[in-house]
Amino acid sequence: MPSASIVAVGTELLFGQVVNSNAAYISEKLQLLGISVLFHFTVGDNPGRLKETLQRAADESDIVITTGGLGPTQDDLTKELIAEICGRPLVKDEEALRRLEEIMRSIGLKNFTENNMKQCFQPQGAEIFYNEAGTAPGFAIEHEGKTFIAIPGPPREMKAMMQNSIIPYLAKKSDAVIFSKMLRFYGIGESALETALLPIINGQTDPTIAPYAKEGECAVRISSMRRTENEAKAAVEDTAVRARELVGDYMYSDEDKDYPQVIVELLEEKGLKLAAAESCTGGLFAGAITSVPGSSLVFDRSFVTYSNEAKVEMLDVSEKTLDEYGAVSEACALEMAKGALEHSNADIAVAVTGIAGPGGATEGKPVGTICFALAAKSGEIISSGKQIRDRGRRVNRQVCILELCDMIRRFLAVR
Amino acid sequence: MPSASIVAVGTELLFGQVVNSNAAYISEKLQLLGISVLFHFTVGDNPGRLKETLQRAADESDIVITTGGLGPTQDDLTKELIAEICGRPLVKDEEALRRLEEIMRSIGLKNFTENNMKQCFQPQGAEIFYNEAGTAPGFAIEHEGKTFIAIPGPPREMKAMMQNSIIPYLAKKSDAVIFSKMLRFYGIGESALETALLPIINGQTDPTIAPYAKEGECAVRISSMRRTENEAKAAVEDTAVRARELVGDYMYSDEDKDYPQVIVELLEEKGLKLAAAESCTGGLFAGAITSVPGSSLVFDRSFVTYSNEAKVEMLDVSEKTLDEYGAVSEACALEMAKGALEHSNADIAVAVTGIAGPGGATEGKPVGTICFALAAKSGEIISSGKQIRDRGRRVNRQVCILELCDMIRRFLAVR
Repeated sequence: MPSASIVAVGTELLFGQVVNSNAAYISEKLQLLGISVLFHFTVGDNPGRLKETLQRAADESDIVITTGGLGPTQDDLTKELIAEICGRPLVKDEEALRRLEEIMRSIGLKNFTENNMKQCFQPQGAEIFYNEAGTAPGFAIEHEGKTFIAIPGPPREMKAMMQNSIIPYLAKKSDAVIFSKMLRFYGIGESALETALLPIINGQTDPTIAPYAKEGECAVRISSMRRTENEAKAAVEDTAVRARELVGDYMYSDEDKDYPQVIVELLEEKGLKLAAAESCTGGLFAGAITSVPGSSLVFDRSFVTYSNEAKVEMLDVSEKTLDEYGAVSEACALEMAKGALEHSNADIAVAVTGIAGPGGATEGKPVGTICFALAAKSGEIISSGKQIRDRGRRVNRQVCILELCDMIRRFLAVR
Repeated sequence: MPSASIVAVGTELLFGQVVNSNAAYISEKLQLLGISVLFHFTVGDNPGRLKETLQRAADESDIVITTGGLGPTQDDLTKELIAEICGRPLVKDEEALRRLEEIMRSIGLKNFTENNMKQCFQPQGAEIFYNEAGTAPGFAIEHEGKTFIAIPGPPREMKAMMQNSIIPYLAKKSDAVIFSKMLRFYGIGESALETALLPIINGQTDPTIAPYAKEGECAVRISSMRRTENEAKAAVEDTAVRARELVGDYMYSDEDKDYPQVIVELLEEKGLKLAAAESCTGGLFAGAITSVPGSSLVFDRSFVTYSNEAKVEMLDVSEKTLDEYGAVSEACALEMAKGALEHSNADIAVAVTGIAGPGGATEGKPVGTICFALAAKSGEIISSGKQIRDRGRRVNRQVCILELCDMIRRFLAVR
């Protein structure tokens, strides 16, 4: 299995002004190409430290991928130092010049500065990758059994170049094909998920099965590297079927979709409209559902009833319920869901009320107490209450959104 | 100026499953302490490569800060390898044991596994930093003129330990004091902000003035490094006053608060209650306001009227307005705001309707067309419409939230 190191170049990264998200993006793609990533390095615009790091990365791995330092200013040194290490002069690339002239014309600039011209010089014999989303080209050089690949730093340019040029370039060098599939789960922890999958994880070589924890939920990646795509795909699908047999009850997507998207698609498929009544989530459930483009077909409205008066006035929650059980109670959640159904054009309405923290806890109702309900036009109603582990207001509210999605999926699954 | 390198430990980082945001966070804090960051390294749970990286980091810089690899499993090696490099045995720390027992009791676990016990052993002579947000302690060791600092990897635990322990620990070692202040702006771009601040940026040595672009908004950090905190503070405050003279109109916080928090505090100060009517933001404005702990004092409710029927039924928007001007119009926004005021107990109601994309554009109303309104019990009304640059659905909706906050701040500023 070939190995790679990723070198991010830029003083702004060492100042902490920018998070290096490029390294994770590139690593994930390399992993899928069957290339094992050994190191990430970040170094500033300092020629001595940058050259030393490039050399060390090449000592440690077969492929060195750099991001950043390809721009037009004097600070940008990545190309120059790679050319120096590989003993190649920089030569003018006519296609790079033509493309740069075209961009300059399109934005109404007539005269080149010397800085601009710098971007048209590339290491002799390098394979040049033209930039579809910016001006600086990238390139690849083979040198003494090592491959150096240079990519611009801005994430939009980096991603376009990875997709259009770097992945095909690396795939050509590999005689294996990788296929992978991401399964998404809710309601089961990472270690319980791993334990349940042990029958297929134990002794695994290919496909590989890797569980990981996301915020409030879990995922499993199944990957296979074979000689043909069909072989890899068949192996992955076969393992996915076995995973579904073991833990299918908790699986909400086998296509790496997030939960709100799955809910929007389910509702669309069944021709149903949804409404919500939200207290502790304060509108975030509706915000998550409407983050899915096209959700207007299935989402009618949400009642963000943060105050008790709002619950009474907008949803007809009874004063008696609030007095007897409190706003954070299954009884209140149920009346909220019924009220939302009544006062909307939806077929299904869900409601959530809870204590997201840090304040608001009362005797017997600590932070993390949450109550849910669902009411459907068919007359069916469901309510439930639970105690979630307090992981701070933001995560607690995120878990409430996932719980509502889970309630809807489970309700629709049998209808 | 002392130098530092940051070593992130964890195979999940090299798989690209997790973005290393810790390095940027820590780098920014070190910068403010007058410590210059030379390298970030990321390495997997591999003892050989990890030890080699720790040694190289110590060769290159005065301070080595690690994140991750402090957990209870066999994979977690950071502590063991630092102890080995510094020639210190691991010894049982009674306070770590006491704290772990307390946590185990609180979640109802009685028996320790050997794995759990691993977390109670710390390098001899290290200064231990107990974890306020998790179980694994961090520590610092001085060895042959170098300082090794180990911090747990989960961002919530890392941040708490940085604030509570690491920053004070490093500040003690420095003979200079840094004071800094973050000013937050909305409605002005980064380059326009920089240009407006040029009179105080030009020729700056101390305080330094650094503008940053954030999502849809801007910030400026003013920092001073002096011999005493009072001197540094006075220099920063003086520069902040001059910045306010130049661009104060766009400044919404001089305490690095986000806009929803500023709005909640403003409303609380004036004893006013807020309601909202949301179309394109789909509940996210209410979600942002209610993300501020204690917002229940000032936030009454939100009407998430995603469909036209919801606008008519919940807010009395007239069919005539929808027919004549469409749902994305100042007229509709104004009726939404009035309706929200009417149907709530709020003193002020705001409304937003717009085309967040990617779909939904119509002739004359491209993606990024947004309309706002505010209605107050005093009878005052405001409406406005604008065309924002399309930066994708998520960012477009974020900008709508900021626009609503800005409308409220400007309305309240003169009352």
